[in-house]
Amino acid sequence: MAKWYHDQGAQSDIVLSTRVRLARNIKGIPFPSRMKGEDGEKVICLVKDALDALHYNFSLIRLSECPDLEKQRLLEAHFISPDMLRDTEHKAVFLSEDGYVSILINEEDHIRLQGIFSGMESEKAYDLIAKIDDCLAERLNYAVHEKYGYLTACPSNAGTGMRLSFMLHLPALCMAQLTEKLFATIGKLGVTVRGLYGEGTKASGYVFQISNQFTLGRSEQELMASITEVVGQIISKERELRTKLLRENGVALEDKIMRAYGQMKYARVMSTKEFNGLLSFVRLGVSAGLIDSLTIREVNTLMVEARPAHVMGDAPLTEMERDVKRADIIRRALEK
Amino acid sequence: MAKWYHDQGAQSDIVLSTRVRLARNIKGIPFPSRMKGEDGEKVICLVKDALDALHYNFSLIRLSECPDLEKQRLLEAHFISPDMLRDTEHKAVFLSEDGYVSILINEEDHIRLQGIFSGMESEKAYDLIAKIDDCLAERLNYAVHEKYGYLTACPSNAGTGMRLSFMLHLPALCMAQLTEKLFATIGKLGVTVRGLYGEGTKASGYVFQISNQFTLGRSEQELMASITEVVGQIISKERELRTKLLRENGVALEDKIMRAYGQMKYARVMSTKEFNGLLSFVRLGVSAGLIDSLTIREVNTLMVEARPAHVMGDAPLTEMERDVKRADIIRRALEK
Repeated sequence: MAKWYHDQGAQSDIVLSTRVRLARNIKGIPFPSRMKGEDGEKVICLVKDALDALHYNFSLIRLSECPDLEKQRLLEAHFISPDMLRDTEHKAVFLSEDGYVSILINEEDHIRLQGIFSGMESEKAYDLIAKIDDCLAERLNYAVHEKYGYLTACPSNAGTGMRLSFMLHLPALCMAQLTEKLFATIGKLGVTVRGLYGEGTKASGYVFQISNQFTLGRSEQELMASITEVVGQIISKERELRTKLLRENGVALEDKIMRAYGQMKYARVMSTKEFNGLLSFVRLGVSAGLIDSLTIREVNTLMVEARPAHVMGDAPLTEMERDVKRADIIRRALEK
Repeated sequence: MAKWYHDQGAQSDIVLSTRVRLARNIKGIPFPSRMKGEDGEKVICLVKDALDALHYNFSLIRLSECPDLEKQRLLEAHFISPDMLRDTEHKAVFLSEDGYVSILINEEDHIRLQGIFSGMESEKAYDLIAKIDDCLAERLNYAVHEKYGYLTACPSNAGTGMRLSFMLHLPALCMAQLTEKLFATIGKLGVTVRGLYGEGTKASGYVFQISNQFTLGRSEQELMASITEVVGQIISKERELRTKLLRENGVALEDKIMRAYGQMKYARVMSTKEFNGLLSFVRLGVSAGLIDSLTIREVNTLMVEARPAHVMGDAPLTEMERDVKRADIIRRALEK
């Protein structure tokens, strides 16, 4: 099945993914935190009917009927947020067949349209999501305020309701211990830094989520331009530092990268935590041209498919069994 | 050039080498610790003349004229003892062209005949050294006591003057933490355990030197039989434990072994200490049939040729340069 992480997009040496998210609510129905049972079901049905008009294939997954491991996999692939796992009643997700769009129903807002692409692909992601949004807008009665724009459960999302997030791999900035200072600076520019799965989650393997902090008072185009500008500067800085690191510290860094590759190629047991750390160095090695037997596309795929629930499949495994299976999956991927 | 460590002898899954050493002195010349300059030179000349009668090619190396790195290499290859590096005046070694025999002159005794073979090869080693000893005995006036046998500088070597040493690789006994108890037991049987380069040196990478403690009061054949019996029991125990370890702890041990192989195959910088540890697991992996792209013969060769002075060659290198060169040597050896 197609998935966004099977691709390799623009600036893929640093940008793992671009995600556009639009928050929408339907007039006359209380926000999910206050809605009654029938309201929740009503939102699902309204969106389902509206989507049927689109020439785009979606499958509907009701979170309350979804096995735990399947839910975890949706989270690991960034199709749903951690919030979707809590109190799953009336929560649902529409997943597009092409693996780029997920529509979250009754998370914090009634509707969250999300498009995710590999690499730096803001326009591609925005255009696709805007098209779906236009179609839904024709069929649903969106809650919109004349002055403030789209209304949302949390005021921080009101206005455009748009969040643009980039997953960035910043090993050189981390090794040079410059992230803290950098993140403080960009915070003043209305850009926020989060962990791997969004707000309140941790960064891992030098991967960070960078997104716009506010959605109010500026157009979608202005928001996109301003965050793209900031991300562009981070990318330049990271590239510059990588060149410097490899020039000044070449053998030691190459040693770390190639050893990480060797561990991934030969280990028989591997924890999630170790895997995240090793994959980070291997990704750097592929980007820097030190490892040529692997592509960024394969690294992207592995990044998701070696995560715990993806490794486990549908059978619950002990931690040891899972770590053995992960090592097998990684080894097979690297042997290709 | 031929060397003993390019071979793979009997019981090579556990026995790295067999070494037979005979200590001899010449009547009428003081022991090396008390000799004058001309006496030292006289011993060298007497042995040289005596060896000329043998159909065996030797090269003479005077330690006082030998570059430090070359001396270190002789030690690393077990052709000389650490004692030969201290106060090198009149110390010399005759090295056989076939890479099995070294004759140490003016170490603790005037003459120490040494034969070293890969694997468990006591008879082969003893027969070769006894033949050279017979030839020298015809031409030199050995110091022998009617009752006590050969006289030596240290009484512990008097009698047969023979020491039979085996270098054993005992990872399973070490991991099961049974070596201490085992070594205490065999100590009572007149068998002593030493480090990698003999008395006062440390064990490294689960490798130990096992040899007879006394040489007096028993014939060479009796000594050989008794220590071979003890070593045979150690080998059985180690093999039994390896099977048990792999059965009970298979994946974890296989993981350790294969990761060690992966590190050796991909590292760009490697210290001596790390190398010793990794090679030990790789050796175990080759013996257990887990690594089939490498032979014990190649492991034996690498064991000596990745040691510091072998890595450095004739140019002194910084520690970092040496560790980078070692990683290159190992990688090339594993790529073959």
